[in-house]
Amino acid sequence: MNFYFDDFTEGSTYRSAWLQISEEDIVRFASEFDPQPFHLDREMAGRSAFGGLIASGMHSASLCIKLAIETGLFRDCSIAGLGVEGLRWLRPLRPDDRVQLEFSVSSTRRSASNPARGIVTFLYRLFNQRGEVVTTMSIAKVLKARPQAEIEGRPES
Amino acid sequence: MNFYFDDFTEGSTYRSAWLQISEEDIVRFASEFDPQPFHLDREMAGRSAFGGLIASGMHSASLCIKLAIETGLFRDCSIAGLGVEGLRWLRPLRPDDRVQLEFSVSSTRRSASNPARGIVTFLYRLFNQRGEVVTTMSIAKVLKARPQAEIEGRPES
Repeated sequence: MNFYFDDFTEGSTYRSAWLQISEEDIVRFASEFDPQPFHLDREMAGRSAFGGLIASGMHSASLCIKLAIETGLFRDCSIAGLGVEGLRWLRPLRPDDRVQLEFSVSSTRRSASNPARGIVTFLYRLFNQRGEVVTTMSIAKVLKARPQAEIEGRPES
Repeated sequence: MNFYFDDFTEGSTYRSAWLQISEEDIVRFASEFDPQPFHLDREMAGRSAFGGLIASGMHSASLCIKLAIETGLFRDCSIAGLGVEGLRWLRPLRPDDRVQLEFSVSSTRRSASNPARGIVTFLYRLFNQRGEVVTTMSIAKVLKARPQAEIEGRPES
């Protein structure tokens, strides 16, 4: 099914696939974007406040985006991201953790100036394999509304 | 110079090095974390609202983190990130753009429960080579305070 702005209603909740994170994933991301010892080096990370290697916060946030996009829900309707509020790193993401994104619709608003699109705000929550919330964020997306032709041409069923 | 919590004062502003972003950088990040046509494929991106390939919003955000960390200011004091508010994608980041991070201290607060650390909130603004703001965010970091021994042992000069 192709999803459009019109298909997202307040309170609807979706779940992504599961994804396992390796030590190599964590180190590779951090080497490029967040080169700090507790993201890069197992030994030094062991002596940090976290007691072991943890993923960069932006890695966790990027995994939320990845898992949301890979659901395919936004394939036909994604126009742009507007912004993020309330990005929180509640628990560390560690090597061999498995994560799943749960996301729900917080609000929807059709554009007044261009009714062919609307803004949907989602609450993203990244869970680990123990059911603990690792990362949360609220993200606003601009989405295409269902094309009129498609609505008018829809068979009565 | 080693920077600690104590060294960040409200209103202080810092600038990172410049960094050039390639088409390959954009496609590689998006392939892993944000596989949408306008981040992946020059042809399809040309037909999108952006009229050409643009970096994933999380790529821009991750570049802010990279440029901040690579200043070295947080090398001796970084404990953890708490969270981000107001992440905004104000302008697209495109192949061959050059970016620089300007970041300023919005607020500082020593921990009441553990005066050996404090929370500093920074406003990050990522500029492109035309002086336009590409991305902004407000990020709260937990930083180590200057070790007491170091203060007491400081030579009078």
